[in-house]
Amino acid sequence: MTTAQALTPPHSGTRPESKTLGVAMIGYAFMGKAHSNAWRNVASYFDVPAFERKVLVGRDAEGVAAAAAAYGWAGSETDWRAVLDRDDIDIVDICAPGFMHAEIAVAALEAGKHVLVEKPLANTLGEAQAMTEAAQAARAQGVQSMIGFNYRRIPALALARELIAEGRLGSIRHVRAAYLQDWLADPEAPMTWRLRKDRAGSGALGDIASHAIDQVLFLLGDQVTEVSGRTHTFTTHRPGAACLDGALEEVTVDDAAWATLNLASGAIASVEVSRVATGQKNSLKLEIYGEKGALLFDLESLNELGFLDSTVPVREQGFRRILVNEPEHPYLEAWWPQGHVLGWEHSFTHQIRDFLLAIGSGTEPSPSFEEGLAVQQVLSAVEESSAAKSSIIHLTGPPAGNTTLEGA
Amino acid sequence: MTTAQALTPPHSGTRPESKTLGVAMIGYAFMGKAHSNAWRNVASYFDVPAFERKVLVGRDAEGVAAAAAAYGWAGSETDWRAVLDRDDIDIVDICAPGFMHAEIAVAALEAGKHVLVEKPLANTLGEAQAMTEAAQAARAQGVQSMIGFNYRRIPALALARELIAEGRLGSIRHVRAAYLQDWLADPEAPMTWRLRKDRAGSGALGDIASHAIDQVLFLLGDQVTEVSGRTHTFTTHRPGAACLDGALEEVTVDDAAWATLNLASGAIASVEVSRVATGQKNSLKLEIYGEKGALLFDLESLNELGFLDSTVPVREQGFRRILVNEPEHPYLEAWWPQGHVLGWEHSFTHQIRDFLLAIGSGTEPSPSFEEGLAVQQVLSAVEESSAAKSSIIHLTGPPAGNTTLEGA
Amino acid sequence: MTTAQALTPPHSGTRPESKTLGVAMIGYAFMGKAHSNAWRNVASYFDVPAFERKVLVGRDAEGVAAAAAAYGWAGSETDWRAVLDRDDIDIVDICAPGFMHAEIAVAALEAGKHVLVEKPLANTLGEAQAMTEAAQAARAQGVQSMIGFNYRRIPALALARELIAEGRLGSIRHVRAAYLQDWLADPEAPMTWRLRKDRAGSGALGDIASHAIDQVLFLLGDQVTEVSGRTHTFTTHRPGAACLDGALEEVTVDDAAWATLNLASGAIASVEVSRVATGQKNSLKLEIYGEKGALLFDLESLNELGFLDSTVPVREQGFRRILVNEPEHPYLEAWWPQGHVLGWEHSFTHQIRDFLLAIGSGTEPSPSFEEGLAVQQVLSAVEESSAAKSSIIHLTGPPAGNTTLEGA
Amino acid sequence: MTTAQALTPPHSGTRPESKTLGVAMIGYAFMGKAHSNAWRNVASYFDVPAFERKVLVGRDAEGVAAAAAAYGWAGSETDWRAVLDRDDIDIVDICAPGFMHAEIAVAALEAGKHVLVEKPLANTLGEAQAMTEAAQAARAQGVQSMIGFNYRRIPALALARELIAEGRLGSIRHVRAAYLQDWLADPEAPMTWRLRKDRAGSGALGDIASHAIDQVLFLLGDQVTEVSGRTHTFTTHRPGAACLDGALEEVTVDDAAWATLNLASGAIASVEVSRVATGQKNSLKLEIYGEKGALLFDLESLNELGFLDSTVPVREQGFRRILVNEPEHPYLEAWWPQGHVLGWEHSFTHQIRDFLLAIGSGTEPSPSFEEGLAVQQVLSAVEESSAAKSSIIHLTGPPAGNTTLEGA
Repeated sequence: MTTAQALTPPHSGTRPESKTLGVAMIGYAFMGKAHSNAWRNVASYFDVPAFERKVLVGRDAEGVAAAAAAYGWAGSETDWRAVLDRDDIDIVDICAPGFMHAEIAVAALEAGKHVLVEKPLANTLGEAQAMTEAAQAARAQGVQSMIGFNYRRIPALALARELIAEGRLGSIRHVRAAYLQDWLADPEAPMTWRLRKDRAGSGALGDIASHAIDQVLFLLGDQVTEVSGRTHTFTTHRPGAACLDGALEEVTVDDAAWATLNLASGAIASVEVSRVATGQKNSLKLEIYGEKGALLFDLESLNELGFLDSTVPVREQGFRRILVNEPEHPYLEAWWPQGHVLGWEHSFTHQIRDFLLAIGSGTEPSPSFEEGLAVQQVLSAVEESSAAKSSIIHLTGPPAGNTTLEGA
Repeated sequence: MTTAQALTPPHSGTRPESKTLGVAMIGYAFMGKAHSNAWRNVASYFDVPAFERKVLVGRDAEGVAAAAAAYGWAGSETDWRAVLDRDDIDIVDICAPGFMHAEIAVAALEAGKHVLVEKPLANTLGEAQAMTEAAQAARAQGVQSMIGFNYRRIPALALARELIAEGRLGSIRHVRAAYLQDWLADPEAPMTWRLRKDRAGSGALGDIASHAIDQVLFLLGDQVTEVSGRTHTFTTHRPGAACLDGALEEVTVDDAAWATLNLASGAIASVEVSRVATGQKNSLKLEIYGEKGALLFDLESLNELGFLDSTVPVREQGFRRILVNEPEHPYLEAWWPQGHVLGWEHSFTHQIRDFLLAIGSGTEPSPSFEEGLAVQQVLSAVEESSAAKSSIIHLTGPPAGNTTLEGA
Repeated sequence: MTTAQALTPPHSGTRPESKTLGVAMIGYAFMGKAHSNAWRNVASYFDVPAFERKVLVGRDAEGVAAAAAAYGWAGSETDWRAVLDRDDIDIVDICAPGFMHAEIAVAALEAGKHVLVEKPLANTLGEAQAMTEAAQAARAQGVQSMIGFNYRRIPALALARELIAEGRLGSIRHVRAAYLQDWLADPEAPMTWRLRKDRAGSGALGDIASHAIDQVLFLLGDQVTEVSGRTHTFTTHRPGAACLDGALEEVTVDDAAWATLNLASGAIASVEVSRVATGQKNSLKLEIYGEKGALLFDLESLNELGFLDSTVPVREQGFRRILVNEPEHPYLEAWWPQGHVLGWEHSFTHQIRDFLLAIGSGTEPSPSFEEGLAVQQVLSAVEESSAAKSSIIHLTGPPAGNTTLEGA
Repeated sequence: MTTAQALTPPHSGTRPESKTLGVAMIGYAFMGKAHSNAWRNVASYFDVPAFERKVLVGRDAEGVAAAAAAYGWAGSETDWRAVLDRDDIDIVDICAPGFMHAEIAVAALEAGKHVLVEKPLANTLGEAQAMTEAAQAARAQGVQSMIGFNYRRIPALALARELIAEGRLGSIRHVRAAYLQDWLADPEAPMTWRLRKDRAGSGALGDIASHAIDQVLFLLGDQVTEVSGRTHTFTTHRPGAACLDGALEEVTVDDAAWATLNLASGAIASVEVSRVATGQKNSLKLEIYGEKGALLFDLESLNELGFLDSTVPVREQGFRRILVNEPEHPYLEAWWPQGHVLGWEHSFTHQIRDFLLAIGSGTEPSPSFEEGLAVQQVLSAVEESSAAKSSIIHLTGPPAGNTTLEGA
């Protein structure tokens, strides 16, 4: 998969949108708040197609109405199916929990709505595949879809991809990817739905390894061929949240996961994720080592990119701390003067910008559902390997790159 | 001046506002864009009094109309005086250039509008004094005013103030404050109005030393008693921007400034600011050394605060990098989960929040115009000292603390 | 294995040395130079038993004589066997290549000489076991032995061990250990004996993973129970060094290795090592996450230890950069005032100090050959797992902790 | 003064030394220990003229004999005058307190001994001038002299000078130099001779500002023309060390000092030094901003140099962390492989190497006494300015550059 292919797929039915686009958003929790911020602000900074924030959807009528008012949506609804029937809705932004993604997304696409869905694509591989098929069918009709790997829109990571694509690192050997958090470090932290496999699908693996793996694929423009992995739950029982008698409940998802990934290019990536890495708050760390250079990134310092160019004389080599905050950097021209740094939420604003621009021009937005599925297949292989004493799993069949699934 | 006094002056006429507040903003350049962002978002995160973004004011009818649309203001105007006559306007946010501050602010206060004015308070000490007097008169009528030293609302610096106020650093000896930028490092960079004394008042001194000095006063809750300083222009002539014949124009403001400030507490602060510090993009660096601890801050990494507690055993002492991004930290509960960092613009959102809360409760917002005047007096003393071979200047007369000027 | 057990094994024959100890060193390349520095300086800083630097041994008569003169040894020899016969030699310090360790060490121990041997203990597990048996036999006679895992003597890592042993991190969950270098990043870098399995045993695995794994065991005082791992050679053929016709030779050792280690305590450690990590010069990175705190270390900044104490209020939590350079810190009282930092070579000086003190007092020095063997067993399991598609290998039989091998 | 001039003065009498040089060292406290380390090790790493460590001199016969044995000197003496009479002594290394420098140095030079003297050159400007004159007279006879500004020999700073001399920074505008320590941060720390003006000459000013100022002159190859400065004592009375009745004694030296220096090139340097900067252990921080680039250094991380090259595209600009530890870097070829970092003491070893090489080749070592005097003149001007309300002091008369004093 080359970058050019990823960005301009040959088989997309073109349907540029010129009317004012009506937007519905489903879900108003953490991700709904972050997406709302993006919809509220994107047009103040970027020249995007006209749109209207029509409706916010949630199960609790009172709660969703209050959220709609606070976040700037014109109205609210409790039934997402009813929203799909509305002619004034052109875009559906799905921020509902993962187990609802497939049903809503497939229905929305079939209704001819452009769809943005939060990551991970789905809780199961089967659902993800069904969603991908629906996206392919819709695309032929000019209906676009995208998965919300928002970190691709962090300027420092967008710059990283540019540098790699330009060959500044030469051939890549190693990638070290880690996503470390500590909100479960306390063994007395209570049970939540996020720790139940039936609701959450998995633990750190689906939640944060998905980001780390997507970055590996995004930055290198590569595919995974083999996976060895393992998952582990350090705290297997936690106090039930609502439980007056103090009974412990079983944690059925992983606290942490480890994997090594063979990539088609010959590079090897290690991935390590944890929710019990004390002191690490939200640290997606990426290290990329190539023949000619290297890159470093940490999400806790997301305005910075470390870059070492090993083609300059040894005497003056060193990792540069690039403050990715110049007009020359991706997305930055729209914001503030140099050195006036951005925050985490800006990645969502950039994501909406790119989604809207793709819809406006009738081109396929990236990352596609196929790209989301590729991540899902790796997550699934990690679980499979973990169950098989970490033995290497070969990813077989047509590889799940975003331009190669059409024959599947 | 104690913190308590600064926050609750005894002589303010109380006029809590309960109606929906109409807001007018004057100016739509860099600061207008940043303030608009704050007004557009503040109510999505914080529980503030109701307000409406009524009108944006600028000289160019077409430009201001486009900006109003993009930034989310209901309408636009070209005459700020006309806006002051409107009954539906309760708040005037002044983002116009410094030389216009005094005229607009005084008129707005006299018209009974609450006023927020960007820093520095004014281009001249005389104007600043007139504004302060107007603010005092208005305050007696319950009309509030505030100067936009937005960096006080960066969570890391708000935390720094808390720690100092709690005595965690003990008695403070040294402060090292620097504000370093490099946008004039290239001697071929063209002339602009910002480099003309008649328009800009001063150079790095008024623009960025004002922030550094305000932080010294804010963090320590202290007053300046003596100043030695100097200013310097490294590049004295620059190519005229519109000048086809290549004629050079004279730069009449400073590129850089240095000062040492004696504080009433006995502490000494050094201040160094520059627009030619190559590689430093927007680096307000603060170092505060006390008997029991120390603090470090850099605006380019504004989510972090360095804190050393010298009361713990020597064996385990060290500067902590606190990622000021927990619900326990100032302003953070409203935003994202831990480790999801904020950007530069959030300081303005917090500023509007605090301004609105003060208006809503009828209490005096801080920093007051008196606090802005205190900074202005230090800037003026630096210029005076610079003209007198850096000799120490004593700040005489009633000190310009915000609670002590009433007799002036 | 507890710390106390490791330091005071119950079964060592006590033979405190009171005479001036004669020292012979075998090998004068990189490690010989570093050990010579330690022998030359240790008595200027530490109160150690009297010793004399008698003889340096190497194969090339002229070369070793010149090295002896430069490094401060009284004489030189070409036959290590002859040196073992000398009555005036009490200590043999083996810096010869790994494939010679077993033969020399066993002979020296049988000759009643105290032995210090560079890591790794040997190139093969069989040799390592033979050496360990010889060390056990000698120990019963009061003859001491030690393996040169010098990084245990870096003050910051010695402090890390203290903090962990004191329970400051609580129960440990995760360890992330990486040792990254880049001296083979250039695919045109020529072939050397270090890249031939028959001479070097292995590549990055034996050379630097051994250090990383020893640190995991040392810092946690723990044992490995299961291993999944893999090794990889990115550049499989390199130009022969002396080869005028440009023929490529095969690289038969690994460039990089990855492993996850289950520890007896329930902790899981990831290990990643590389010689092609562009821009990383000599970076042994350690991250240790416990229930109550965390530690960070990087060998490139070896005077610093990062420490996060999660028992302090969240508001003031953060990784401290402890400059491990105070008289209160391990080994530091002997050196310079606070903040006058040490270098890499000091770890060897501390190692000789501890070795001499143990000999002087007739106690067993640590790390023992058993501890070296434990590391070797893990390295061997990584290779075994790598050959078996990364499947988990159980370390069976009596665990190779240093106090438990006696029954083996 | 150009770099070339500084390194090859035209007027030195050439007397290359080819015999084995006898060395005497006077003083065996902190600096004596550091210099001894250098003499003990220099020949193991560098190809220097042959020398013998003949005699260590100190007032206490028993103490100096023990130190000589520990540090590796052949003998000891209590009378420095007697040592000057010895024919077998060719070099005198003066590590005695500052108030003794002039007397010993002048006598040694007159006795035809090459002299290395610790910084600062002397406690008074008059003594420094007398020493400089003696050095000039001796130089004409081929007798060399040098002042021990050892930080010039830190590889990172030597590299910094190279980069500046090569024009990589272009014309320099700003220098920010600070030397921060905290060993007097505790107001209860007892009185010592170092806090008495009659013994120590000054406080932080002479002790550490001297290093900072020397670096400014060394790195830029420049001269100071004007000085504004101030000194301050935060803790004016301290408990007498031996004082059973608890009486306080007066501190008669400065705790901290600040200065701005105009340089002949048009650059301006700020200097700030303190012994009460809590948490800063031994932090000499240097920031150098030029038209084309910038450099950063911190003595607490002395293996690193920050370098920003503003001639590369803005998109990839950033401060590089150069680990100054490659064979390509100054002094490094003699030591360990890349990434095996050096410590503080190595700067002294390099200093002795350069001193010996100069003596061996009959060329003038740098920094000369003239260069030491130039620093002294700046220190003196800071005190003069401090006494005159920080007014700017012009450094008049023939500037004290090392090649221009001959006419004085």
